[in-house]
Amino acid sequence: MSAAAQNNRRLAPRQSAERAGWTAAQARAAFRDGLCEQTSGMAYGHAQANLIIVPKALAFDVLLFTQRNPKPCPVLGVLDAGETAGPLLVDGDIRTDVPRYVVYENGEKVDEPTDIRAWWRNDLVTFIVGCSFTFEAALRAGGIAIGHIDQGVNVPMYRTTRRCASAGSMTGPLVVSMRAIPSSQIADAVRITSRYPAVHGAPVHVGNPAELGIHDLQRPDFGDPVIIPESHIPVFWACGVTPQAAVMETRPELAIGHAPGHMLITDARDSDYLVP
Amino acid sequence: MSAAAQNNRRLAPRQSAERAGWTAAQARAAFRDGLCEQTSGMAYGHAQANLIIVPKALAFDVLLFTQRNPKPCPVLGVLDAGETAGPLLVDGDIRTDVPRYVVYENGEKVDEPTDIRAWWRNDLVTFIVGCSFTFEAALRAGGIAIGHIDQGVNVPMYRTTRRCASAGSMTGPLVVSMRAIPSSQIADAVRITSRYPAVHGAPVHVGNPAELGIHDLQRPDFGDPVIIPESHIPVFWACGVTPQAAVMETRPELAIGHAPGHMLITDARDSDYLVP
Repeated sequence: MSAAAQNNRRLAPRQSAERAGWTAAQARAAFRDGLCEQTSGMAYGHAQANLIIVPKALAFDVLLFTQRNPKPCPVLGVLDAGETAGPLLVDGDIRTDVPRYVVYENGEKVDEPTDIRAWWRNDLVTFIVGCSFTFEAALRAGGIAIGHIDQGVNVPMYRTTRRCASAGSMTGPLVVSMRAIPSSQIADAVRITSRYPAVHGAPVHVGNPAELGIHDLQRPDFGDPVIIPESHIPVFWACGVTPQAAVMETRPELAIGHAPGHMLITDARDSDYLVP
Repeated sequence: MSAAAQNNRRLAPRQSAERAGWTAAQARAAFRDGLCEQTSGMAYGHAQANLIIVPKALAFDVLLFTQRNPKPCPVLGVLDAGETAGPLLVDGDIRTDVPRYVVYENGEKVDEPTDIRAWWRNDLVTFIVGCSFTFEAALRAGGIAIGHIDQGVNVPMYRTTRRCASAGSMTGPLVVSMRAIPSSQIADAVRITSRYPAVHGAPVHVGNPAELGIHDLQRPDFGDPVIIPESHIPVFWACGVTPQAAVMETRPELAIGHAPGHMLITDARDSDYLVP
């Protein structure tokens, strides 16, 4: 069994229920102590987040990239250069509290550690970016089943042929996550998620993967494939892996992200990001 | 009559109606040709915006300040260093298209020109920040009268004792704008403006100016005093003059803002910033 498959193995229902009930601090402590799992469905009610960590010299370009691409890159918080904790992770440590990281040198993946203390530098600026896992609780509360949670796997994510707006050296494709929704519930899924603009909001596309340049839903670029039941339609949301795709393309000397699906669990509540 | 009083003189109703009907491009052309007036009620339906223009060396601090203070500083767009036009002002020129500017050197106001070409440098980065004038059309459509429009003056703005979150060298007080609303319509005013988070959204305070450190509503720090009718309650919204207050406090070598109330009129529609 591959490391990825082990990470994403289906949990026993009791274990899964226990993890859904964790507080954010409990989840972060578990990751700090070595647990390495994808986080969808975990610590219900707590906002989950993507990471992109870059040297200060690149920080303006990254922040401007997020400002110009708010659907994939809704910034929830920024830690100052060298800072490892903040209001979104009180008493936390950004270097150890995420289940798995990806380290890029010149755009190449060079490491996938569960702890980045060996890579840490005092000029590193951490961007905490909203994640669509945040609105999954609201979707489920609205009676919409989430395939990848029910199937015990990571959400499937795809690089699209849509380009983001550039900012300085930062440029790249839009990355999307996919959830297959029964036709009868698509309007509800749009209505519910549009109320969470800080965590990607409404879908960017409904129904035709080819228009996004996605030719095989069973071969995601990140995460796992999911079984798509008959009469379900693929619905695509902008994804916070987008800054990592830009890093792979624009090749800065160093950048660190979370491993897709392995998010920072923040102290913010999902409801903090709900708009009327 | 002072220059400010002249700028803010009450317009004849016909002239005012004509200006309300302008397109954004027509308004910008009029300012470029020398018109200098506060812009509330002008070019209805077009989003108005605050400006803060700083050297590239300060741009990350300013962008981070806006990210950490989204209520007073909702960024609608950022022009690259030296750029003078962009999607929010197609065929426009940020150096000439605002009715009046304020130039600060080391935090001191040194000029209030109607054109900043003499101050322009190729390292200047322009931040275009949402303005509460944008939601005034929605308030009026909801049957809520806007005192400063009806009285033909600039909106009153106040420095508060509330501090913004700092970012690098940028720190300062929250600035608010005030509209007096009949008690019976306060819930409506909150409901309507909360749907426009990109242009300051819901009020930051209702009813007790002293709690914000405002001791005399008739002596605003920016703009004009307004007559507050009996049974009206002062309601305060975060204001995009806030970055200028930070500039006055943190004293960068150069910064340029709009003159309060004299906004950039953008090609964006108010409705572009409406959330469900």
